[in-house]
Amino acid sequence: MNSFTFHNPTKILFGAGMADQLGQQVAELGSQTVLLVYGGGSIKRTGLYDRVIKQLHQIGARIVELPGVEPNPRVSTVRRGIKLCRDEAVDLVLAVGGGSVIDAAKAVAVGVPYEGDVWDFLLRKAKIEAALPIATVLTLSATGSEMNGGAVITDWEQNLKKSFSSPYAFPKFSILDPTLTYTVPANQTVNGIVDMMSHVMEQYFSQTTDTPLQERLCESILQTVIENGEKALQEPAHPEARANLMLCGTYALNGGMISVGMQGDWATHAMEHEVSAIYDIAHAEGLSIIFPNWMKYVYRDRIDRFVQFAVRVWGIEPEGKSDEEIALAGIQATREYFTRIGAPSRLSDLNIGEESLPRMAEEAVRFGPIGYFRKLGADDVLAILRMSL
Amino acid sequence: MNSFTFHNPTKILFGAGMADQLGQQVAELGSQTVLLVYGGGSIKRTGLYDRVIKQLHQIGARIVELPGVEPNPRVSTVRRGIKLCRDEAVDLVLAVGGGSVIDAAKAVAVGVPYEGDVWDFLLRKAKIEAALPIATVLTLSATGSEMNGGAVITDWEQNLKKSFSSPYAFPKFSILDPTLTYTVPANQTVNGIVDMMSHVMEQYFSQTTDTPLQERLCESILQTVIENGEKALQEPAHPEARANLMLCGTYALNGGMISVGMQGDWATHAMEHEVSAIYDIAHAEGLSIIFPNWMKYVYRDRIDRFVQFAVRVWGIEPEGKSDEEIALAGIQATREYFTRIGAPSRLSDLNIGEESLPRMAEEAVRFGPIGYFRKLGADDVLAILRMSL
Repeated sequence: MNSFTFHNPTKILFGAGMADQLGQQVAELGSQTVLLVYGGGSIKRTGLYDRVIKQLHQIGARIVELPGVEPNPRVSTVRRGIKLCRDEAVDLVLAVGGGSVIDAAKAVAVGVPYEGDVWDFLLRKAKIEAALPIATVLTLSATGSEMNGGAVITDWEQNLKKSFSSPYAFPKFSILDPTLTYTVPANQTVNGIVDMMSHVMEQYFSQTTDTPLQERLCESILQTVIENGEKALQEPAHPEARANLMLCGTYALNGGMISVGMQGDWATHAMEHEVSAIYDIAHAEGLSIIFPNWMKYVYRDRIDRFVQFAVRVWGIEPEGKSDEEIALAGIQATREYFTRIGAPSRLSDLNIGEESLPRMAEEAVRFGPIGYFRKLGADDVLAILRMSL
Repeated sequence: MNSFTFHNPTKILFGAGMADQLGQQVAELGSQTVLLVYGGGSIKRTGLYDRVIKQLHQIGARIVELPGVEPNPRVSTVRRGIKLCRDEAVDLVLAVGGGSVIDAAKAVAVGVPYEGDVWDFLLRKAKIEAALPIATVLTLSATGSEMNGGAVITDWEQNLKKSFSSPYAFPKFSILDPTLTYTVPANQTVNGIVDMMSHVMEQYFSQTTDTPLQERLCESILQTVIENGEKALQEPAHPEARANLMLCGTYALNGGMISVGMQGDWATHAMEHEVSAIYDIAHAEGLSIIFPNWMKYVYRDRIDRFVQFAVRVWGIEPEGKSDEEIALAGIQATREYFTRIGAPSRLSDLNIGEESLPRMAEEAVRFGPIGYFRKLGADDVLAILRMSL
């Protein structure tokens, strides 16, 4: 186990009906002018928008709106939010939505007190040293952004998708009300499942040794997602399945709680970001396609971890099989699960062809080789993307 | 799963050598006068005391000392600390030690801004509404007090041992340096192992349904403690075993992270507190004796959980056995493990006889029946204590 610092100050309010605690929580922060950040309008169809507005009015808060945050949130939208905050003296950025909405809210919050352009943070040209307070009402179990300091933002003009992570970007509180996810469409539920599993796997496939607790915590989340994912797809308003998925998504990526002292890999995320920076596909679609191929490309570097993954997470019977066979069976089980729940397995399924791959590979390694399980150069990335065609 | 609120703002600095980060962390809090709380002097023998003093001097902090905190920390000591803080305008309470030292520090910190006597909080006559900042350097893996808001304090004059828990009592930061535990005597290492396992089991044996992730998180800690406990006893300076135990102890009881939305039991703790309120035995000695007897007394109320415990935690082979047999085998495995590492199994081993049991049973239910897995009245407590003789 490596040395580490862990600090996660986000307060979580979890459970059916918790969305009605919003007003009180905002009042406790003493906020007076709220930037309400949301997406394409599903919160209006479900009535959540009205519930939020009503509570904010009840506590006498003034509301400024930033609607229309995109699934891959754009820096242009973030800049619009920053200007609104400055013009209207906003003192709380409230995200009501899924990971994209929350990420956009975080970028707005860190951008407001910074004199330069917010994109500097994404290019690592500047360090985040302050932020407006952030709060969230989560409507989609997926990214874990509700309990961490990270965000992913896209610049469509340059086809760049980049991330930042900062202690200043942890939400003050996040409301996790599983009933809000009952109406999430099947394809977004699928994407959420792939996303949270990928987050755990990025941490789990590590070269750090002597981390027995962390490995088990990762396996616990994976097993629970696998069991509950299909239940939620079969019965979208299944209270336990939705609650379990929501908790798993949050714990999967809440500041590294499950993998403290382990060096995660994250190469698959880096590769996927290049795909969805050029093609406007869902992040999780790219992950579903690339992750099993990354596994096949690297598993021999630490076959014991892949064997353990196969046996403990997928219940592969080890008896009579070689390590190689067990590891490959675990990778195959991952691919089959993704396929079974309806996630894509080939870039060509999404009409992505060979022609963009070299550019993606070059851009993926812009800051140097990616990944820690195995460091990947442009050639490696290209090979994995070609396996994914 | 029940609804819940989770908020754990304690910052953790974990790893070999982290004790040397103390000065910088205190400086970041802006503290000027530090109450240094410690126990019987082992930190002087190991050199940790000098390391702490040197760092506090380097940042120009003034130091006031509260030495001699007892293994079952006494309210008289806490009162002495409160007076020191008031007289010397202390602005940080720094615990350097194990759970008892940290608990005493917390009680001092919450007592300072309160006009009445600190014991009021233990009797639930008053609510904690403020505290001095608290920080810790942990020297013993056991109680989890380094990352939660709870404390247990004893009044020897009245033979009362009581607890409080408050959001104000979370440490601002805790330094977890596993190398500091290499010199912990074997019996205290044993006590730590029993303590952390008991904390997890109090949460795990719950009547709350549909908590698959939480159950697995609990099992993960138990399995890891079981594996690493014996390693640390065989080789006290085993770096990985000590690091794994330290992480397990902290995660076992850090504000309920592993059991969010589950109602824990805690009857065994309540019963044990009555034993060690009268006899000055280590808390974990009492837990080791009572816990398996509590299990035997209640397991039929939810045999599936005890079956799962036996199979997943202890690797009991279920094939060809009844649920009853599997559950009992898990309870037996727990008893045998405690015995194997050298923890006591009978009150009579500690020279505790029948005569005090009725009084303990009455005092245990002073605020009403105890436990949530099964509510226990005085008769139940007496029966379990008699099983423990």
